[in-house]
Order: sequence, then C-alpha cells, then structure tokens
Amino acid sequence: MITLAERINGQFLDVKKAIKERDPSVIHELAKKQTEAGATYLDINVGTAAADQEDAMKWLVESTQEAVNTPIAIDSQKLSVIKAGLEVIKNDVMINSAQGDPEVLDTYMQLAKEHNAALICLTMNKEGIPQNVDTRIEIAAEIAGKALEHDVDMDKIFIDPILFSIPVDQKQPAYMLEVFSQIKLISDPSPHITVGLSNLAQGTQEKSLICRTFLTMAIAAGMDTALMDVLDTELMDAAICSEMLLNKQIYSDSFLKAARV
Amino acid sequence: MITLAERINGQFLDVKKAIKERDPSVIHELAKKQTEAGATYLDINVGTAAADQEDAMKWLVESTQEAVNTPIAIDSQKLSVIKAGLEVIKNDVMINSAQGDPEVLDTYMQLAKEHNAALICLTMNKEGIPQNVDTRIEIAAEIAGKALEHDVDMDKIFIDPILFSIPVDQKQPAYMLEVFSQIKLISDPSPHITVGLSNLAQGTQEKSLICRTFLTMAIAAGMDTALMDVLDTELMDAAICSEMLLNKQIYSDSFLKAARV
Repeated sequence: MITLAERINGQFLDVKKAIKERDPSVIHELAKKQTEAGATYLDINVGTAAADQEDAMKWLVESTQEAVNTPIAIDSQKLSVIKAGLEVIKNDVMINSAQGDPEVLDTYMQLAKEHNAALICLTMNKEGIPQNVDTRIEIAAEIAGKALEHDVDMDKIFIDPILFSIPVDQKQPAYMLEVFSQIKLISDPSPHITVGLSNLAQGTQEKSLICRTFLTMAIAAGMDTALMDVLDTELMDAAICSEMLLNKQIYSDSFLKAARV
Repeated sequence: MITLAERINGQFLDVKKAIKERDPSVIHELAKKQTEAGATYLDINVGTAAADQEDAMKWLVESTQEAVNTPIAIDSQKLSVIKAGLEVIKNDVMINSAQGDPEVLDTYMQLAKEHNAALICLTMNKEGIPQNVDTRIEIAAEIAGKALEHDVDMDKIFIDPILFSIPVDQKQPAYMLEVFSQIKLISDPSPHITVGLSNLAQGTQEKSLICRTFLTMAIAAGMDTALMDVLDTELMDAAICSEMLLNKQIYSDSFLKAARV
C-alpha cells in the first residue's frame, strides 16, 4: 500500500519545539526512521502553533530533504502554506489536501498539474462533511470529474472520505467500508482511496489494535493509502499481511521482511 | 462471534497421550482454559491415532463435561464417531461436519433434528472440493435447501466453504471473502459461515498474524464463526475489535474486557 508517514507534524511536541528552535536534527531523525520503516511519502504538517506557517513549511521541507530523498506530502489546510512548500520541493510530491468544492478543486487541480503532484481531495465542501454515503460519493465523483477536466492522471488522485473517531461515532467504520467499495466504482481506472487512520482511534485506549484492525478491513474493501504511524511495527505487519492475503504481495516464509526491502 | 476452540484434538501430542492413557486431567485443563478464553463451543476431535475412535470420543466428551458445561462440537469425518459422541452429550451440541451430498445431508440433517444439534456442512461432495466460487455456492444453496426440507432452523446451520493454507494456494483467501459474501445471500435468514481458521496458516512462520488478519477481513465479509485457537489472545482481540468496529459490540474504553465477561 501507499503509506503517508504522519510523524513530521507540529502537533507533536518534539516537532513543535524543533520548528520553534529551527533545530533540524529531530526532523532528520524522523525522516530517516520513517523512511526505513517503509514510508512511501513523508507527510509534513507545520501544525497550528508556528507563527509564520509558510516559512515553517519551507524549513520543514528543506530539513527533511537534507536527510532523505523520500517523496513528501505537503499537508496544510491553507493554500499559501502548500504553495510555500511546493517552492522548495526537490523530489516527487503530494498535496494534502483540497476540499471538494468545484472552484477549490479547479485551483488545486491546476496546482497539481503544474507541479506534477499527487493530490488528496476530501469528500467535504463548504456545507461540511456529509453524514450519508450518497453525498460523499457524489463529491468523490465530482473530484474524479475535475481530474478528467484538468487532464490530471487518475493515478495522481487520492480521495479521502474522512474518518471520524470511534468515540465520536461507532457507526462510521462500517459506513466507511461501504464508501470505499463505492468509490472504486466511480471511474475506471478508479482514484486511490486514503484516510487519516490515526483519527479513528483518537481518544481510545487501544489505538494500535483499533488502527490495524480497521486498516485490514479497509484494505480488503479497496482502500490503498493511509496517513498513518509507520513506526508502529504491528500496524505495518497488518498492512503487509493484508496485501499478501489479497494476493497483492507474493507469499514466502519471509514475506514481512521481503515487503520491507 | 461464535468460536469453536480447537485444542481438544488428538492431533496434539498432549491430547493424544491423554486419550491413550485415559488421563482426564489434560482434558479438564484444556476445557477450562478454553472456556475462560471465551470459547462458544469446545471442538472435540479424537484424531486419527486412537484405536477405537468411538470409545475415545465418548471418553473425551465425558471428560470435558466433567470440567465444564460449555457446549461441545463433536468433530469427526465418521458418522459412527459422531453418533458415539451424541450418546453421551449432556448440554448443547454441534455436529462437525457433514459433506454436501444430498443423501449425506439427509442423514446428518435428521441426526441434527433428533438431537437439536447445530450442524457444520462442508461445501464439498463426492467429487471433491470445487475450485470455483459458483460450485461452492451451489453446494451451499443445496445445504440451505436441505435444512428447510428437514425443518432444521437456519440458525443451526453452519456452512464451511473450506479454507486451504496460503502455501497451497495464495489466491484462496480473496476467493473465500467472495464466497462468504455470496453465502450471505442464499437465504433469509442466511446460514452461519464458518472456517477452520488455523488451516490457513499451516506451514507458515507467521501463524498468528496470518490468522488474525484473515479473521478480521472474514468477519467484515460476513463470516461469524470459526474453529480457532481461542488461547491466542491477539487473535481473540482481533475478533472482538472487528465486531466493535462493525458496531456489533458497543465501544467503551474497556471493550476488550467487556466482551470477555
């Protein structure tokens, strides 16, 4: 699967401190560890505390690139912060994320096209996050339509149907599996499907178990990407084993090791 | 989910020895431990080594019943061994298993009806185990039809589509998920779906990971029963967490503990 490693995020205290003090050693370390753990992308999010978010994003991207060549996902709700990150990107890049309003999608699709970037689009719009399957699928279809309109390769499009935490709504996980199955049907080839996996277990006491159990079900339902804790070995094992069971990774006695090479 | 605990089986050396020496202490211990771990049924299988399988089954059932009141699944390919077990059963019972030939099903459905027993039926017949989805579903439909014919409550019928090990055929797990989804559709109410979970990981070096990952996918696809290692805590946690994520168990901070009470 395609993994976005979540740890370079200003909401974690070590990263917040590193940003404030412009100390790249913490970022180098996280970039290397997450790359070794199998991250496809390193997600970079300045968090909300940084005074100048644009400058903080540039510094985080540059610091990360000093340590590794792993593709980066520039993660911000603000277009100006995304653009600041794109200015200093050296390798493959992903934009995380756009909302599903037509005019917003036009802006982000153009930006993705310009930078040959992958793009995560949320199934939400100005009216908020729809609470039924149909409206989320409608927004997903709108996203796929905009990708065609802007001639963005469907392989660059990642739809995030937005995962809530279990304590907020226990019906969401089953609902999400249904949404995943339907997103697979909106176009051929279909867009990728992604979620912020750790959201699911926010406020619970069995974070790792809940995340890896849902990840397994989600992979079987067609989700192929997640923003997640790649440093959680059991979570990564579950992802690798799920793909092996679905015949997407060849079985051998050492399939876990083989998938990490 | 409905669990059949697999450990009282003459293929395990401790049980084989206990049968040979007619030493009930090993059986008492396994019956208690598996019951405490959450077994719905204790599966009892004399294995192939016992000289007099009928007598061995009677002794195993009686020894188990000395220790616990947990329902028993009498597990044998031989009708005479099943009947021997049924003679001494005191509590709720399951017959494991019948093959899917019409005349065999007639015999076993009658037996199930007579003893108010649950019945596992395999999707195989005289011609062997079909290698395509359609024929397995046809046999499953034949089983459901025979249950109606013999007036056996569908809630007593457990269809086992027969799980092969990963090293034998890596395409089987994905194929099984498809079979599960289709079995759910053959009647309303639908029969239960079960597998011999440990078969999947035979000959592999990641038995627990493979079993719990498949179990999670299988529960999401509609499987609700398995013959499995209930003493594997991680496997049981995965089963409980899967049901919680599908909103079949209420979430609380202590949902793992709550499910085990």
